[in-house]
Amino acid sequence: MRNKKIIKPKISTKKGKPPGSLIYMGPRKDVPITIDYIQYNSEKYSEKRLKKFSESTELQSEDYITWIDIKGLHDLALIEKIGKVANIHSLTLEDLLNVNQRPKVDFYDEYIFIVVQILKFDKETSVIESEQLSIIINEKSVITFLEGNSTIFDTLKSRMEKTVGKVRNGSADYLAYSILDLVIDDYYEVVEKIGERIEEVEEQLIIQAKKLAIRDIYEIKRELIDLKKTVSPIREIITKLEKSDSPFINEKTRLYLRDLYDHAIQIIDTIEQYRDLTSGLADMYLSSVSNKMNEIIKVLTILSSVFIPLTFIVGVYGMNFKNMPELEWHYGYYISLVFMLIISILMLLYFKWRKWL
Amino acid sequence: MRNKKIIKPKISTKKGKPPGSLIYMGPRKDVPITIDYIQYNSEKYSEKRLKKFSESTELQSEDYITWIDIKGLHDLALIEKIGKVANIHSLTLEDLLNVNQRPKVDFYDEYIFIVVQILKFDKETSVIESEQLSIIINEKSVITFLEGNSTIFDTLKSRMEKTVGKVRNGSADYLAYSILDLVIDDYYEVVEKIGERIEEVEEQLIIQAKKLAIRDIYEIKRELIDLKKTVSPIREIITKLEKSDSPFINEKTRLYLRDLYDHAIQIIDTIEQYRDLTSGLADMYLSSVSNKMNEIIKVLTILSSVFIPLTFIVGVYGMNFKNMPELEWHYGYYISLVFMLIISILMLLYFKWRKWL
Amino acid sequence: MRNKKIIKPKISTKKGKPPGSLIYMGPRKDVPITIDYIQYNSEKYSEKRLKKFSESTELQSEDYITWIDIKGLHDLALIEKIGKVANIHSLTLEDLLNVNQRPKVDFYDEYIFIVVQILKFDKETSVIESEQLSIIINEKSVITFLEGNSTIFDTLKSRMEKTVGKVRNGSADYLAYSILDLVIDDYYEVVEKIGERIEEVEEQLIIQAKKLAIRDIYEIKRELIDLKKTVSPIREIITKLEKSDSPFINEKTRLYLRDLYDHAIQIIDTIEQYRDLTSGLADMYLSSVSNKMNEIIKVLTILSSVFIPLTFIVGVYGMNFKNMPELEWHYGYYISLVFMLIISILMLLYFKWRKWL
Amino acid sequence: MRNKKIIKPKISTKKGKPPGSLIYMGPRKDVPITIDYIQYNSEKYSEKRLKKFSESTELQSEDYITWIDIKGLHDLALIEKIGKVANIHSLTLEDLLNVNQRPKVDFYDEYIFIVVQILKFDKETSVIESEQLSIIINEKSVITFLEGNSTIFDTLKSRMEKTVGKVRNGSADYLAYSILDLVIDDYYEVVEKIGERIEEVEEQLIIQAKKLAIRDIYEIKRELIDLKKTVSPIREIITKLEKSDSPFINEKTRLYLRDLYDHAIQIIDTIEQYRDLTSGLADMYLSSVSNKMNEIIKVLTILSSVFIPLTFIVGVYGMNFKNMPELEWHYGYYISLVFMLIISILMLLYFKWRKWL
Amino acid sequence: MRNKKIIKPKISTKKGKPPGSLIYMGPRKDVPITIDYIQYNSEKYSEKRLKKFSESTELQSEDYITWIDIKGLHDLALIEKIGKVANIHSLTLEDLLNVNQRPKVDFYDEYIFIVVQILKFDKETSVIESEQLSIIINEKSVITFLEGNSTIFDTLKSRMEKTVGKVRNGSADYLAYSILDLVIDDYYEVVEKIGERIEEVEEQLIIQAKKLAIRDIYEIKRELIDLKKTVSPIREIITKLEKSDSPFINEKTRLYLRDLYDHAIQIIDTIEQYRDLTSGLADMYLSSVSNKMNEIIKVLTILSSVFIPLTFIVGVYGMNFKNMPELEWHYGYYISLVFMLIISILMLLYFKWRKWL
Repeated sequence: MRNKKIIKPKISTKKGKPPGSLIYMGPRKDVPITIDYIQYNSEKYSEKRLKKFSESTELQSEDYITWIDIKGLHDLALIEKIGKVANIHSLTLEDLLNVNQRPKVDFYDEYIFIVVQILKFDKETSVIESEQLSIIINEKSVITFLEGNSTIFDTLKSRMEKTVGKVRNGSADYLAYSILDLVIDDYYEVVEKIGERIEEVEEQLIIQAKKLAIRDIYEIKRELIDLKKTVSPIREIITKLEKSDSPFINEKTRLYLRDLYDHAIQIIDTIEQYRDLTSGLADMYLSSVSNKMNEIIKVLTILSSVFIPLTFIVGVYGMNFKNMPELEWHYGYYISLVFMLIISILMLLYFKWRKWL
Repeated sequence: MRNKKIIKPKISTKKGKPPGSLIYMGPRKDVPITIDYIQYNSEKYSEKRLKKFSESTELQSEDYITWIDIKGLHDLALIEKIGKVANIHSLTLEDLLNVNQRPKVDFYDEYIFIVVQILKFDKETSVIESEQLSIIINEKSVITFLEGNSTIFDTLKSRMEKTVGKVRNGSADYLAYSILDLVIDDYYEVVEKIGERIEEVEEQLIIQAKKLAIRDIYEIKRELIDLKKTVSPIREIITKLEKSDSPFINEKTRLYLRDLYDHAIQIIDTIEQYRDLTSGLADMYLSSVSNKMNEIIKVLTILSSVFIPLTFIVGVYGMNFKNMPELEWHYGYYISLVFMLIISILMLLYFKWRKWL
Repeated sequence: MRNKKIIKPKISTKKGKPPGSLIYMGPRKDVPITIDYIQYNSEKYSEKRLKKFSESTELQSEDYITWIDIKGLHDLALIEKIGKVANIHSLTLEDLLNVNQRPKVDFYDEYIFIVVQILKFDKETSVIESEQLSIIINEKSVITFLEGNSTIFDTLKSRMEKTVGKVRNGSADYLAYSILDLVIDDYYEVVEKIGERIEEVEEQLIIQAKKLAIRDIYEIKRELIDLKKTVSPIREIITKLEKSDSPFINEKTRLYLRDLYDHAIQIIDTIEQYRDLTSGLADMYLSSVSNKMNEIIKVLTILSSVFIPLTFIVGVYGMNFKNMPELEWHYGYYISLVFMLIISILMLLYFKWRKWL
Repeated sequence: MRNKKIIKPKISTKKGKPPGSLIYMGPRKDVPITIDYIQYNSEKYSEKRLKKFSESTELQSEDYITWIDIKGLHDLALIEKIGKVANIHSLTLEDLLNVNQRPKVDFYDEYIFIVVQILKFDKETSVIESEQLSIIINEKSVITFLEGNSTIFDTLKSRMEKTVGKVRNGSADYLAYSILDLVIDDYYEVVEKIGERIEEVEEQLIIQAKKLAIRDIYEIKRELIDLKKTVSPIREIITKLEKSDSPFINEKTRLYLRDLYDHAIQIIDTIEQYRDLTSGLADMYLSSVSNKMNEIIKVLTILSSVFIPLTFIVGVYGMNFKNMPELEWHYGYYISLVFMLIISILMLLYFKWRKWL
Repeated sequence: MRNKKIIKPKISTKKGKPPGSLIYMGPRKDVPITIDYIQYNSEKYSEKRLKKFSESTELQSEDYITWIDIKGLHDLALIEKIGKVANIHSLTLEDLLNVNQRPKVDFYDEYIFIVVQILKFDKETSVIESEQLSIIINEKSVITFLEGNSTIFDTLKSRMEKTVGKVRNGSADYLAYSILDLVIDDYYEVVEKIGERIEEVEEQLIIQAKKLAIRDIYEIKRELIDLKKTVSPIREIITKLEKSDSPFINEKTRLYLRDLYDHAIQIIDTIEQYRDLTSGLADMYLSSVSNKMNEIIKVLTILSSVFIPLTFIVGVYGMNFKNMPELEWHYGYYISLVFMLIISILMLLYFKWRKWL
């Protein structure tokens, strides 16, 4: 996630260009561009893949809700043509091409523009990947621009095709709400994965003091920082949508947006909670490292303390002075051994008393 | 508490389903479902356990306040039937089935919907358990949905049966207030238990430096984080209830809600205070670990420092050089012993002067 | 302070009772209950101790301001009787009996209810003690309920008796202001005591590194946390009083309340400042511990480093090999001594160069 | 700074006195009291030192702006007389005598009362000294009360005398603004001095690891805490002045107050910035201490590790067993030396491989 | 960056001067002063370098937008003359000369005054340099004052000359917006550079534990603190511009300002994120230092622990007692060696069991 987006917002490559000029700045230039054209109402659902986007494509059918689902952003000519047909402001086009966009909503007289980041936990590489999703809401149509080839819409589309549910009976803004609901469901999944990793690290710290835990903790912390930056503007977006007096948001949909708002708050709360837990884990890790060092130093100290005086004594009787009466004693050797035994016992008793053993 | 709810919000299992579809996502599928049907006014109190919920069940009696107390959420057919009879929005049903719901209040034209988490300190396992409680307030009825088989209502019910107090004379919203008061009383108990554990850890740190204190501190910290997430939305809920212009909240009840608000604030304040104390304890623990290490290293240093030079000296007189005049001296051995004694006394005096002894 | 109040809010002992029921939950059941009945105006001041509170006690004399000063809360019958005579709401009575009450003000149509905690620094035991004070303000009367037998009012009463000052000429709300002023003066004293303790710890850390300083710092931190919880709601109380449109607050008194507000802010600022200082002290303490350990380890290292190679050398010449030519040399012993001297000088020069000496 | 003011707010010495009674609580009872009486307009400037303040002193001349500059506060009779002549409220008098006053502004019908703390960096003692300055603004006059004998006004007075600038052409509130501007200029100087000390400590930490740096850091931290408490209320004061509808603030002056506000914000920002830097320095210090200890321990470990096995070997050949064939070998001694050399080289290679050398 | 501006706000050199007096306080007195006079509309673009600024210079042409681009601030006479011609308030002139100005916007009846800091990452010295830019917006003209000789405007000018884009068709406020857009683009570049440095430090910490990492971390932290102080007021400036009812801001430009606002927020978010990451890095560094010390101490302990008992044993048999039977045994030497081998194996097994190996 961070490698692509957050650490390096490559906006500076646009330097020297006038504001409002269209440049695709993302890395995904190899994604095949697809345009899916969907029309539905409560009675009919049709989906076709367009070869090319012609200027006569119907965007505001009275009878249907039209959803144009575009994947891949690197064909500037296409984007410009869509912009022209759908009457999209150049600033909006610029924003949807800038794949490091902070999530936001903009209200224009002609449409509502929402840009968010969708997240995906890649099970194989254990990496969180992000992709920019832009949504343009009109009275009778929704246009979505996905940066890459995410399959996030697949379940929604097949559900819409198979069953006549709320979406099929709903208006364009309800479709937009359903899409945002998918996005937030993916956030839940990502948060859950991080929760699992926190539990793993917790277990590692309690059962065995794994050496690299701090790196794991830092990784988690970093992902939470990234995640917060991605998720927290969502709250504001939904609030603005709910409170707006835009004609494109129906009264009925506001109730669902309020529900979505609760979900967003819950995710943000959980991220905050995880950050607190993570810093607690770091403390616990540092303390376990400290304790271990303590333990080792204690062993060293006890061993040294017992043997250093003894080694001195044997050194004394290893001296080569001519006149050392003890050396001549018949039981001198044994007396010295007993003496050293007594000393070591006294030392150990002292350590016992100091609670070091 | 956390194992069930907070670390793993299992909402992602709902993925692929349309928003608003009813799925029970909690673990308590084995709780027997019970429906208690209570009707009361200042003159009468009746309580019966319903075998099944029929569509003709009276919900809005003019003469009585009706309280339907449902325990267990895993029978979706039942929940849907109640929803239909009581005219409950599908989003509300979805929320009450989602047992990881963030506490909140929603105002509908037909009812007020409150969802909170009740907490229980299990004395045997020393674990804080949570259960979701949903309350639907109508003009003449209250419906409560409990996730599990908590006995939280028992004292309230027996009090209502035995004595004609404020609840029996009150309206439906006063019953709801009494239920929230029970919930907050349980929070007090949980906070008190954590306060006792903080005192225990404090004592451990002051009297004896227990090795695993940091894990206890982390546990407490974690419980406080969980607790805060559960309790802090309560403040907002009560404020919204008090300030709302909903016809289901009587003027008289607002006074009591204000009182409840004070209680909620006090609990939140105490949680904050405990978090501060806990971080202070962690500092004190780390410092006591440091001090102990210091102590041990000091002993090692003093012993080594005294004996290392002496061991060198005895080593010198253990050398086998042919020509070492001292070895021939008659009192050489005794002189060397005295010399070493003087050196060790000087070392100890130096340590005394450095304040290490 | 904390032992009584903050760590253990014993509200859970009320569990199972209906909200609004009267129970005294404090520890001070042995305080003798006294009722002082004071009437004054600019011309007259009378004070008498009532044997019992009769229902005919005059509370709203037109000519005098009446102050009823009640100490001790454990006689529930008395409290209830006063409540009935003075027309006090049951929630208010509950609050004034609950001695763990968070400081607050409630405005009723019939009176203003203020509850605060008075603090006292006990010079003998060095402990901060708290006692709950409830004030009920009416048009022509003030009723105060003290939990214990504090003498906080003594100077005020004797001043009122002796001199005809602002209080004697003022209204009931000015008396209440004067009482709050006394309470805040006591806070100043307590804050000052903590300031003195911070200075003591500072001195200990700078002059001598006292071993148990961290416990003192933790104690101070804990008292500041408790203090903040007690003092910070005062700000809100005074603001509410000043801004309220209650008929019991005269325009003239608002000016004095604003002054009181400044004092409260100053105390809260000082508490914040002390908390910052305290965390700075903890850092300094940890650093001084670190430094000391550093110092000790340095001595150990230098001594070991100098003697370990020398001890090796004398060991070499203590070996019993038949063929060791050096041992036969006439000046072998002296040469070895000089050699060792050179080595130790080189070692010391190296340490000097490393800035360890 | 802190010694006088912040650690010990000696307000408790006022205990037992009624609120609003006049007591001077500062330490500067030995400052000679001076009263300078200045009158000016765009044509004339006169300044005289009054022997005594008579009740007939003209305060509201129509033709001139009158500035009464009083230094020293310990003559209560004088303060009371001024209060009476200038119609100053007793609460104001109390505040200006209480030299630990939190900076604030109070609007009365008759005047505006401002109290601030002026700061002075004493170059000789390197101590920041504070003095309380109270300003009373009227339509045609300004009265200033300085606690001590600061010379802060000298440059302003001489400039006013010499040149007919904005102050001479301005109203009384412009004079007050000019005085506040002087005060804030002094804050800049103090902040700059602290900035220099931070740079010094930084340099000490980078070039040489000075042992007492943590104490310096703590001193700086403490001064920043004190400074913040003194400076941050200024922002509020200026905002209140600018937004007030008091007749004593002219429209033209508001523009200058806005400028002053920018300066205050800049100082507060810088203080925050310095606090962040200071905590960064503390981290760096602790890390440098850690690193040094690490370094020392490494040397000890390497030396011990190399020599301990060698010392064991020479010990083995120092044993006095009868039957030790190696001792008889002709080259036994040399073989043992080579063997020990090989062992020590292997040890050093191992340390090299572990990156310890 | 900091050396020039933030650590030493040299405003105190102005001390003793009246407020509003013009003094240049920056270090760049050697920058050659240039005045570029640009006039453009959608049809024409002309740029000429003025030798001197005469009072007859046309500032408010009806047909053209006039942009006067002044570089270098140390010629006070010039600044004053411009101020007089363009009708600029003396406070504004003072602010634009004070090169340590906090970024801000001021609305006057005659013009809008904006002051910001432009940042430049110097690739050769790796230092972030700042320069003050003041912008005065009028109905038909923009005057910019640059402190130094930055080339920030070059691309804008050449683009304006070559192509008739939005700027050429726009009003004076659109030119000002384009300039602010350039400034914020430079911030992106600086933030990106810091991001790269954070990545470098991260890599250093993970791959090799570089000794001086903490200094790098402190440097980054410091730059982020400085950066935040420079960038965060921008948000407020843009909000004020967007919300203002100044006649100099056209409705059309507000849309672009909103876009600029999003960019500013994104930069501020990234700075916050980097600060969090940086503190995480510091923790990781300290932990890696701790771990390394742990590692070293472990090796020391194991070696000492194994050899200290052995050395004692060989010492015993090096004693010179007459009567030591073991010494006479034929296999005594070998037995002792085997005995010592067993002891060392036992020690190692013990360490294995303690998980130290």
